[in-house]
Amino acid sequence: MLVKDCFVSAPGKAILHGEHAVVHGKVALAVSLNLRTYLQLKATTTGKVCINLPNIDTFLCWSLCCVLLLITARREEVKLLDSELVRRLREFVGVTNGNLDTGNMATLAFLYIYLSLFGSGELPSLTVSVWSELPTGAGLGSSAAYSVCLAAALLCASGAIHTPLKELDHTARWCQEELELINSWAFQGEMIIHGNPSGVDNAVGTWVPRSTKVLVARVKDKINKFPSIMTPVLDSVDAISCTCEKVLSEMTCEPITGEHYNILEELIDINQHHLNVMGVGHPALDTLCQVTLTRGLHSKLTGAGGGGCGITLLRPETDAFVVQSTVQDLRDCGFDCWETSIGGPGVQQHSPSSIKKEVLEILNQY
Amino acid sequence: MLVKDCFVSAPGKAILHGEHAVVHGKVALAVSLNLRTYLQLKATTTGKVCINLPNIDTFLCWSLCCVLLLITARREEVKLLDSELVRRLREFVGVTNGNLDTGNMATLAFLYIYLSLFGSGELPSLTVSVWSELPTGAGLGSSAAYSVCLAAALLCASGAIHTPLKELDHTARWCQEELELINSWAFQGEMIIHGNPSGVDNAVGTWVPRSTKVLVARVKDKINKFPSIMTPVLDSVDAISCTCEKVLSEMTCEPITGEHYNILEELIDINQHHLNVMGVGHPALDTLCQVTLTRGLHSKLTGAGGGGCGITLLRPETDAFVVQSTVQDLRDCGFDCWETSIGGPGVQQHSPSSIKKEVLEILNQY
Repeated sequence: MLVKDCFVSAPGKAILHGEHAVVHGKVALAVSLNLRTYLQLKATTTGKVCINLPNIDTFLCWSLCCVLLLITARREEVKLLDSELVRRLREFVGVTNGNLDTGNMATLAFLYIYLSLFGSGELPSLTVSVWSELPTGAGLGSSAAYSVCLAAALLCASGAIHTPLKELDHTARWCQEELELINSWAFQGEMIIHGNPSGVDNAVGTWVPRSTKVLVARVKDKINKFPSIMTPVLDSVDAISCTCEKVLSEMTCEPITGEHYNILEELIDINQHHLNVMGVGHPALDTLCQVTLTRGLHSKLTGAGGGGCGITLLRPETDAFVVQSTVQDLRDCGFDCWETSIGGPGVQQHSPSSIKKEVLEILNQY
Repeated sequence: MLVKDCFVSAPGKAILHGEHAVVHGKVALAVSLNLRTYLQLKATTTGKVCINLPNIDTFLCWSLCCVLLLITARREEVKLLDSELVRRLREFVGVTNGNLDTGNMATLAFLYIYLSLFGSGELPSLTVSVWSELPTGAGLGSSAAYSVCLAAALLCASGAIHTPLKELDHTARWCQEELELINSWAFQGEMIIHGNPSGVDNAVGTWVPRSTKVLVARVKDKINKFPSIMTPVLDSVDAISCTCEKVLSEMTCEPITGEHYNILEELIDINQHHLNVMGVGHPALDTLCQVTLTRGLHSKLTGAGGGGCGITLLRPETDAFVVQSTVQDLRDCGFDCWETSIGGPGVQQHSPSSIKKEVLEILNQY
């Protein structure tokens, strides 16, 4: 079976407000980032299925005749994982409970979606290569972006959704119905990567779920220890998410003013204190806040916390020199920095010419 | 009229939790400190009334015939200020709205209580000298301790309450009824010092009320701006005060454990974040928290905030060397430090021999 080549990409996500509180039934505010994960699917004639994940030094190939043996009976319900297939795959990949590393998780998610989509017919010989601009394990949705790319490319290859890109298009998106199918398969990948999804939004996914779980437990412990003190803090976080959403939507339909940014900064500061109260802060994140504040910029942790990643708001009038100096200060403290905007497009198919040269070069190595 | 000499003292106060939230109807937890204000009242034959406040370089004397002219008609109700007397005193002392300094306020409170208590009879010739171990303007209740000492000594001198000290006593306290009278006159002094009392607890008084008012306004502004975000924060502060009170009362009737201190430390950390959320923090207070935390000690602001004073919890097992090193670190950052315990006795009369030598030497200069 020969499938069509394709390029797809999906954005990372940042939680602006509501990380952790979301686990306790509160509103969280997630936005897409203009940092993307790119996937190239190439049809091959090697009789093999291969995955290349250069970000995490994972390069694997299997003969189709080997993976064929893993296929289970076809299932109609795709909302729940096929636990028998997961069990076989874990054994096949050599995953034990103590060995849930990023590469294993990503491999499991790939093989699961591949076998589920093609298992009822002939398995196609193909190579999937993925390159991401997103840091892994930082709560920026790198695993969700990966799962979405996998689902979109493999659904396209299987013919379950059409190939939206027309001859002269640079990029193209799928219709709503097809996006929902992509999302439902991406969610399966997320379920695999996160082991036992604990209700944390699919979009908040990270490659490595374990630290999140410990921190979620820490928040839960603190709520159980001081319910009268912590419950109002979660209510306040909920109100922060709602207020931020209101301000952001005002900014899309009204003239943007300095006061909009002032409020966004205040919300960041308040929530950063709340996250520290919830016990998910980290001295490195305090350093981030202090270093950026000396340049007049406001920061908070995003995602899991306890290390991980923070976000710093850049105002439109923030001087490029200030940004550069802040980035240098942060690098001097050992941080990596990514400058990006929020609200990028969701999953899309690409023509090769629409993909950044450096990404294309990396993907074309495989 | 010759009055009896006396020595009295009153403790400072610290707000453990609930500063600012108390203004919005929440519980605040105040405790007495073993840092005291001492007052010596000496009968004189100079025909003058004098006040010496060496802490704030205020030394004033008036002829009795001058102050006699300020007396207004005797009033029965002592819960409200005699606004006519206040007006005359402000004019007499030379207080304009722009000149509400600590010395003027302390002078006004002294003359107000003196004239109110003695105005219906002969004015006694006397000198009042006050020395305080408390820093002024830091929210440690130095103005309340001053007002309480003034009220106790002048009520004693006027014969309105008895002199509790017996011949061989070192210290003595008044009965409940007399303490209530002292408190009601001390509150008059506090009303004078604070200008227009805004509902902030009498015990939270500071010499200079203006900064507190600005910070209270800042909290109010933030509540008005973000009611759904800030109201839960006040609820959480309220719960912190109640939890802390519960732990402290457990510690007086149960064996004290490390866990008691762990909880007290957690409450301090949470509330310090909340106070920052309320906008009453200050970079100097952040420095205090960081410096003490590097020695394993937990701190928060106390009182007005926006500078002022912080409290650091010392555990019973905290090594003396750690305390010394921390004090040195803080002094190097420009802080003054006072080591004290909480729960000292309220207002009391002293025999001269029961007063610390250094305090007695200062007071005896006048």
